[in-house]
Amino acid sequence: MADSSAPTRVMMAVNESSLKGYPHPSISCRSAFDWMLSKLVRSNTDGFHLLFLHVQVPDEDGFDDVDSIYASPTDFQSMKQRDKIRGIHLLEYFVNECHRLGIKCEAWTKQGDPKEVICHEVKRVQPDLLVVGSRGLGPFQRVFLGAVSEYCVKHAECPVITIKRKANETPQDPIDD
Amino acid sequence: MADSSAPTRVMMAVNESSLKGYPHPSISCRSAFDWMLSKLVRSNTDGFHLLFLHVQVPDEDGFDDVDSIYASPTDFQSMKQRDKIRGIHLLEYFVNECHRLGIKCEAWTKQGDPKEVICHEVKRVQPDLLVVGSRGLGPFQRVFLGAVSEYCVKHAECPVITIKRKANETPQDPIDD
Repeated sequence: MADSSAPTRVMMAVNESSLKGYPHPSISCRSAFDWMLSKLVRSNTDGFHLLFLHVQVPDEDGFDDVDSIYASPTDFQSMKQRDKIRGIHLLEYFVNECHRLGIKCEAWTKQGDPKEVICHEVKRVQPDLLVVGSRGLGPFQRVFLGAVSEYCVKHAECPVITIKRKANETPQDPIDD
Repeated sequence: MADSSAPTRVMMAVNESSLKGYPHPSISCRSAFDWMLSKLVRSNTDGFHLLFLHVQVPDEDGFDDVDSIYASPTDFQSMKQRDKIRGIHLLEYFVNECHRLGIKCEAWTKQGDPKEVICHEVKRVQPDLLVVGSRGLGPFQRVFLGAVSEYCVKHAECPVITIKRKANETPQDPIDD
């Protein structure tokens, strides 16, 4: 049976792995992506249009560079340029996967506080559904980590699906992803 | 393209309307059901298996009956019997809709605290996805109303989709549904 209505536009917030480094997607967002393909999109590849958003947190990305010396405005420019390239490589993974499966998609990066930027982009782009992966941390760990998924469920102006990382995928330090 | 894998099992928590009374589904859960059909199931009716759970709160159901006189154990039995029948009529709405659309489904009722029973049933039934409607109340209103969706997002052992009631569907008193 053909799907005559407009495709369902699914926006997905994706981020880098803190373990495997550039340009690997985090365990949470990769597992959320796989889940979405197998459980929602299924064989109905024409019925969905995927929108990938990567929000870069400038401070966090620069965290490993405590020994770097910034001596001129150009040094910051090149750092920003490098961050941008990392983000684009991350998105490349998802766009390639969609292309392989024949699913239409778009991807873009933004800078800022992920939870606020995600909700702002939902308002701007108006997807039918927002998908957010979650590490499934306890309340104590969440306080220090921003709880992006919790914020989005409350504030995003569209239905939100929260997909927790599976227990058997949790790394030794659950804060890693 | 045929979908060869097992259908995606979607569990949905449904409740009665506080406005229209028996046996109408609440605005939130009806809108969540319609959204799920048009945006996720789409034309892929063979790819999904829907599971409807109605959790009855005995105290709440008896609230209108402040003038009733309970004189014997039989009076309670008949109240419980009546509650059960109301729940069954509510489920009938969803089962009929699925039957009309050719989507396989199952429906059942349980008694207890909705948020705890829902998470318990997720553990027992192991659906791929839990759908919960939400009135989209603010933090002050939520304190007094249990925040079923918020609890399920944190505690249910499967991905959870929260679908907020639309602004144009909110009744005069937002606590109504």
